[in-house]
Amino acid sequence: MRAAVLRSGALTVDELPELSPAAGEVLVDVKACGICGSDLQFIEHGEQMTEIAGRIEGDAPFARLAVDLHRDVFMGHEFAAQILAAGEDTHAPPAGTLVTSMPALLSAGAVEPLVYSNTRVCGYADRMLLSAELILPVPNGLDARSAALTEPMAVGVHAVNRAAMQPGESAVVLGCGPIGIAIIAVLRSRGVDSIIASDPSPLRRSIAEKMGAHRTVDATRSSPFDATYHAAPPAVVFEAAGVPGLLDEAMRRVRKGTRIVVAGVCMQADTLHLIYGASKEVNLVFSNGYGPAEFAEALQLLADGDIVVTPMITGVVDLDGLPGAVDALADADRHCKLIVMP
Amino acid sequence: MRAAVLRSGALTVDELPELSPAAGEVLVDVKACGICGSDLQFIEHGEQMTEIAGRIEGDAPFARLAVDLHRDVFMGHEFAAQILAAGEDTHAPPAGTLVTSMPALLSAGAVEPLVYSNTRVCGYADRMLLSAELILPVPNGLDARSAALTEPMAVGVHAVNRAAMQPGESAVVLGCGPIGIAIIAVLRSRGVDSIIASDPSPLRRSIAEKMGAHRTVDATRSSPFDATYHAAPPAVVFEAAGVPGLLDEAMRRVRKGTRIVVAGVCMQADTLHLIYGASKEVNLVFSNGYGPAEFAEALQLLADGDIVVTPMITGVVDLDGLPGAVDALADADRHCKLIVMP
Repeated sequence: MRAAVLRSGALTVDELPELSPAAGEVLVDVKACGICGSDLQFIEHGEQMTEIAGRIEGDAPFARLAVDLHRDVFMGHEFAAQILAAGEDTHAPPAGTLVTSMPALLSAGAVEPLVYSNTRVCGYADRMLLSAELILPVPNGLDARSAALTEPMAVGVHAVNRAAMQPGESAVVLGCGPIGIAIIAVLRSRGVDSIIASDPSPLRRSIAEKMGAHRTVDATRSSPFDATYHAAPPAVVFEAAGVPGLLDEAMRRVRKGTRIVVAGVCMQADTLHLIYGASKEVNLVFSNGYGPAEFAEALQLLADGDIVVTPMITGVVDLDGLPGAVDALADADRHCKLIVMP
Repeated sequence: MRAAVLRSGALTVDELPELSPAAGEVLVDVKACGICGSDLQFIEHGEQMTEIAGRIEGDAPFARLAVDLHRDVFMGHEFAAQILAAGEDTHAPPAGTLVTSMPALLSAGAVEPLVYSNTRVCGYADRMLLSAELILPVPNGLDARSAALTEPMAVGVHAVNRAAMQPGESAVVLGCGPIGIAIIAVLRSRGVDSIIASDPSPLRRSIAEKMGAHRTVDATRSSPFDATYHAAPPAVVFEAAGVPGLLDEAMRRVRKGTRIVVAGVCMQADTLHLIYGASKEVNLVFSNGYGPAEFAEALQLLADGDIVVTPMITGVVDLDGLPGAVDALADADRHCKLIVMP
């Protein structure tokens, strides 16, 4: 079988021995795997990211970054796959079933992330192993490409949950990359009736409108905080761009008591005037990842057609096309979400 | 009568015409006025503070900074005073009653802050005018010096309310200046059973212990986040120092889901690694000021003896001593709270 590995700072497609499912595991045939923006960051700035992650204390370390960059790294954490075989004494749906899973493997007493891994094959591969306990059958005949985007949509579900939106509240979304788009789609599916989104890219603004934004703002020419865009000031702002400076500008401009959900992952240090936040008593709510119920909810939203992700899929490649696709993804004027179909 | 005014960057005591209460106003004899750390900042960095405040948008501008520094500025917003006379048709307690008030005057349709003002005499004066609607009689024979500290204690009440502490939760307080001390005292009065406070100053740590901290940490030698100080990691952290870098370090070290209340007002830009906050999904809760109910609660806590502020009062001066006292306050190893008794 073949898989893409990060080796000496570049993605390379290599031959690997076939995988065999242990008890509790299921061997699957990867049908689609989304390329996440964080994968680009990791390929370019992996050393810096693991160094920063290593500094972070507390009982929720950034565990998915606990990898050795001097060894091959498997990647790909947004996948849909078809069941081939289950391990011994392992209950699983029948072979041929399309499934998805949170990107993790439950092994003896530990959770191994399937995001960046030296030991476990992830989604950029012909086949991979999943935990029978974590797999979810894809309902309603949803196609593999859409099902693969359950993961980024779960990030959106979680960010919107963190915002604790109340009826009648309006939202601003800064950044229309895949995470901003996921947030917009989830907000719309929940009936939020004013969603203003901003991005410098015309393509991404157009996708944001197709997927639920009521209005978009060209971030190079205007600001979503300008009064002209609002019947009432936004109650909640989502920073989904991960661009230094955006959070400070949001704190400067919002009204008193605004909740700002920090959903964009920015590894660089940012400069903030805390006095802006103090003067308005904002709440900065950091959002990262999702839980199993949110992952399942995201899949259901896709399967029920409450969220249709096709507008954000701007291209499909095979495994050999992956290295080039990763480079292409850096061009926000041409791409939003690219899918690998091994 | 005499009052201190900020003129050309320095406090000067000057003669003023006597004041006369209009309808709705009460003329009072100032008995005690606390010197706030923000007054030092304002004297030294007033231009910068008003410039930054001018940039802030939203419906809660930093209004108390809307002053013209080229004209005389009255100051002093932590006061207790004795009633002398009320304006026409104005209901007020009898002359001789000791009162305090939120530092604001309600005039026709507007709220004039009594913090920094070009037009209204504030607490650094022999006499001042208050709004009959806002004055609160000081109960239980509480002395004027303690009653004057209702205002900073109200800041503490509000910060603790913003934290929404749950039973069993523990707290860390970064900084044992008057705001940190107020937070500590309020936490203790509410029965929080683990309050760890840090400060570089031995004097301030000693005051923190007298006013409710269960343990203090010398910030020059150790960190309140070290495991040795805790049975369990703190659920809530109060940043009450307003020192750049402290918030970033707190985000790096706390456990998942920690609420960090930003109560220290820092006018400088700060550098934050948002990835620290994201990885632990912290909530940054900005706290500023207080409401009328919180101001009244602070006065009651003092009057009932639930909070005793005498340990934090490190000196008393008269009006002529005010300029020197402001300089002395910069020395955290000698002073915490100085009181002017005109």
